[in-house]
Amino acid sequence: MPPIAFQDQIPDNNCFGCGPGNREGLRIKSYWEGEEAVCTYRAEHHHSAGPPQFLNGGIIATLIDCHSVCTAIANAYRLENRPIGSAPHIWCVTAKLNVTYLHPTPLDGPVLLRARITAAGPKKTLLLCSLFSKSDEECARGEVVAVKVPSTWRY
Amino acid sequence: MPPIAFQDQIPDNNCFGCGPGNREGLRIKSYWEGEEAVCTYRAEHHHSAGPPQFLNGGIIATLIDCHSVCTAIANAYRLENRPIGSAPHIWCVTAKLNVTYLHPTPLDGPVLLRARITAAGPKKTLLLCSLFSKSDEECARGEVVAVKVPSTWRY
Repeated sequence: MPPIAFQDQIPDNNCFGCGPGNREGLRIKSYWEGEEAVCTYRAEHHHSAGPPQFLNGGIIATLIDCHSVCTAIANAYRLENRPIGSAPHIWCVTAKLNVTYLHPTPLDGPVLLRARITAAGPKKTLLLCSLFSKSDEECARGEVVAVKVPSTWRY
Repeated sequence: MPPIAFQDQIPDNNCFGCGPGNREGLRIKSYWEGEEAVCTYRAEHHHSAGPPQFLNGGIIATLIDCHSVCTAIANAYRLENRPIGSAPHIWCVTAKLNVTYLHPTPLDGPVLLRARITAAGPKKTLLLCSLFSKSDEECARGEVVAVKVPSTWRY
């Protein structure tokens, strides 16, 4: 059976970057690959930087943010030895997002995101996430602090 | 005569966040207000976070990034005492983008961005940029390092 993306197990998520039901969103899909989480994304032409052949820096930040926070959520369920999306639901939000842009990212191919957890406490998860171009060049590197929040933050 | 936005003076910009001709982009508009640059933006419903009533963190990062880099470009022309977009063209790209998320940002109203330059060298411009909700709460704070690049980076 093929693996199910984190995003297809997290309920009630309308996010522009990772909500499966947000038709005008990016709808990224993230999966475990050993201790890393990976996501392949193919941007659309309007996700460009100033020059039309490069990927926009804000979209890069969105991809790093959403892939990392979904990984933090998946890891929090994993640490409790239960399936993603099982009750009680676990929610994380982004407290800090630091992105270093290393090289322009070509828009005419998929990008690969690789995230790994560097620290996981009861409340905070720290992650490093790199974005690679289709030619395996590391084009951007992100540090994310994800924080667990009560379900009530949604209302 | 009403002021003309930075973005409507910078030529050939197809950017998702700030390109005036990118029909599916955010098309932000930035203006000087004394020593600060301001931008008011009203997001669309699909720019939401997980909960549909909050603004997405990646869109917040995009707004801070684009408003700050356009301000760095505008400032670079200003330091040369010439109009934005006059030849030779000045281009800046984002080297670093650090965003701290302070509070959830309501989606049902405009946000206001205020950027100010903290250092401007021949190559690097450092900026601080805050995003305020419709009720004047500072919801996110960004630090941006913009770097001047030769026009050839576009090709």
